[in-house]
Amino acid sequence: MLSGCQSGVTESAMLFRKVAIIGVGLIGGSLGAAIKARRLAERVAGIGHRVESLEQALKLGQIDEFTLNAPAGVAGADLVVIATPVRLIAEKAREIAGSLAPHCIVTDVGSTKGAVAKQLDLLLTGKARYVGSHPMAGSDKRGAENAAEGLFAGALCILTPTPQTDLDAQHRIGELWRAVGARTATMAPDEHDRRVALASHLLHVSAACLVNVQTSGSLECAASGFADTTRIAGSDARLWRDICLDNAAEIVAAIDKFRDELASIRMLIEQGDDRKLFEKLDCAARKRHEWKGPPGHRGPGGAS
Amino acid sequence: MLSGCQSGVTESAMLFRKVAIIGVGLIGGSLGAAIKARRLAERVAGIGHRVESLEQALKLGQIDEFTLNAPAGVAGADLVVIATPVRLIAEKAREIAGSLAPHCIVTDVGSTKGAVAKQLDLLLTGKARYVGSHPMAGSDKRGAENAAEGLFAGALCILTPTPQTDLDAQHRIGELWRAVGARTATMAPDEHDRRVALASHLLHVSAACLVNVQTSGSLECAASGFADTTRIAGSDARLWRDICLDNAAEIVAAIDKFRDELASIRMLIEQGDDRKLFEKLDCAARKRHEWKGPPGHRGPGGAS
Repeated sequence: MLSGCQSGVTESAMLFRKVAIIGVGLIGGSLGAAIKARRLAERVAGIGHRVESLEQALKLGQIDEFTLNAPAGVAGADLVVIATPVRLIAEKAREIAGSLAPHCIVTDVGSTKGAVAKQLDLLLTGKARYVGSHPMAGSDKRGAENAAEGLFAGALCILTPTPQTDLDAQHRIGELWRAVGARTATMAPDEHDRRVALASHLLHVSAACLVNVQTSGSLECAASGFADTTRIAGSDARLWRDICLDNAAEIVAAIDKFRDELASIRMLIEQGDDRKLFEKLDCAARKRHEWKGPPGHRGPGGAS
Repeated sequence: MLSGCQSGVTESAMLFRKVAIIGVGLIGGSLGAAIKARRLAERVAGIGHRVESLEQALKLGQIDEFTLNAPAGVAGADLVVIATPVRLIAEKAREIAGSLAPHCIVTDVGSTKGAVAKQLDLLLTGKARYVGSHPMAGSDKRGAENAAEGLFAGALCILTPTPQTDLDAQHRIGELWRAVGARTATMAPDEHDRRVALASHLLHVSAACLVNVQTSGSLECAASGFADTTRIAGSDARLWRDICLDNAAEIVAAIDKFRDELASIRMLIEQGDDRKLFEKLDCAARKRHEWKGPPGHRGPGGAS
């Protein structure tokens, strides 16, 4: 397992000549805007499938030019960012593989990394230099209309190199994310998927279940605890279906671990075991208070 | 099942002569402050077991006087509010039963109502007029230092009368909560416990489990989704242990319903059933968006 964390201010020098972003939505649009605002590239090309949204991204200053033709769009780029939903990443990589310059760096921003890394290593080795990224920002909103150049400020971006990853490419992708305000950490794709299944994907499944079991009567009694614990259940169902299916094995393992903990607390409640029940709840309360807050959180704590 | 909802501005007239609040913590202190700020009573007496916290409550303007002696403190009161943790409510009622004026109204502010209502009906019938309240505010902070006269503004307060409840007392307790800014709803104690087990208690159990299953590695990857979904896991473990034990049957039923929904989504992920998995997640997303937001929520929505 690779692991490490870097942060700090990086000088805003030009990092790339031409950046091509495939999928100019929340993440792609925000990254384009951040690159342009900081002059990290000479130009940013947007690639998508709807002229209207690309025109909007152009107007919002997220890109300098656009095309619907991915192979044409990536021509001459020294950085390609695939910012489509997870299930389309490999398809896009296949589409552009023949049009990339060999020195070109390719990254993606998918929320799952194991399967994608295997596919992209296969598709791109010898054709370009691939290194996976997962910027942990903006998961419950979507679309270019919510994109903002400050989206990555303080957020954690996890880089997921494999043994095949070019070290210079990895270094430069790290520089890019730090230049747009993110902190970076590095871990193997499978390790990423295991950790994120617990820290993120499980929470989405659990939030959806918590909403689904409510009755109209219980919802009348729901207050701020419900608002917070189920906020992410309102996320895009298509996106999360794909993430669940792409990281199925790790998410199922996380659900099983959660189910066992739930069964354990259920038993203590049923048995009226006040001492052990207190220990369980107190353990959670302490662990929650000790947590330093989300990487993207501005201000202290996050445990309030 | 009794059910109904009332809200709106109530004229700030003097509602009681002497109010005695047993347990001047977050809820008790806030209620005292709200009563005094609105001149809803001639005087507010605080009853507790620590002189220091009662002196602080006096300084903070939450009460006008205090005593450690509950029977003496309730003498001459026309309203007694038992604002102790749930497990102490019956004990306090027993302690004061002989010292109450027959016209005196007694309420409690416990988060569970079935067992409490049975006990207090038994203890107080013929000695005073009891009607249960559950103001749904401030569940994740505690102590008089967090008390504020605005705590109940916009919050839902559920009244839980039984067949033995005096209608005039019920009416006046409703007036009190509306006068301090709350909206009121009315339902039978068992119905309250069933609804709140799903809408609140289950969420605390689930949040504690979500925290307990995290590893140090996964916590490094936790972001704003984790911050929100597990916020309430940081609540006071003693308080929530008592609530879990007091409402055990309903909470176990809620956990079972949740566990079955979790098993169902787990199976769809394992089987790769993209259509049914989408339906489950989409059902939750729609239901979450349709929810009008927590009663205490200021501003629109709450689904963001």
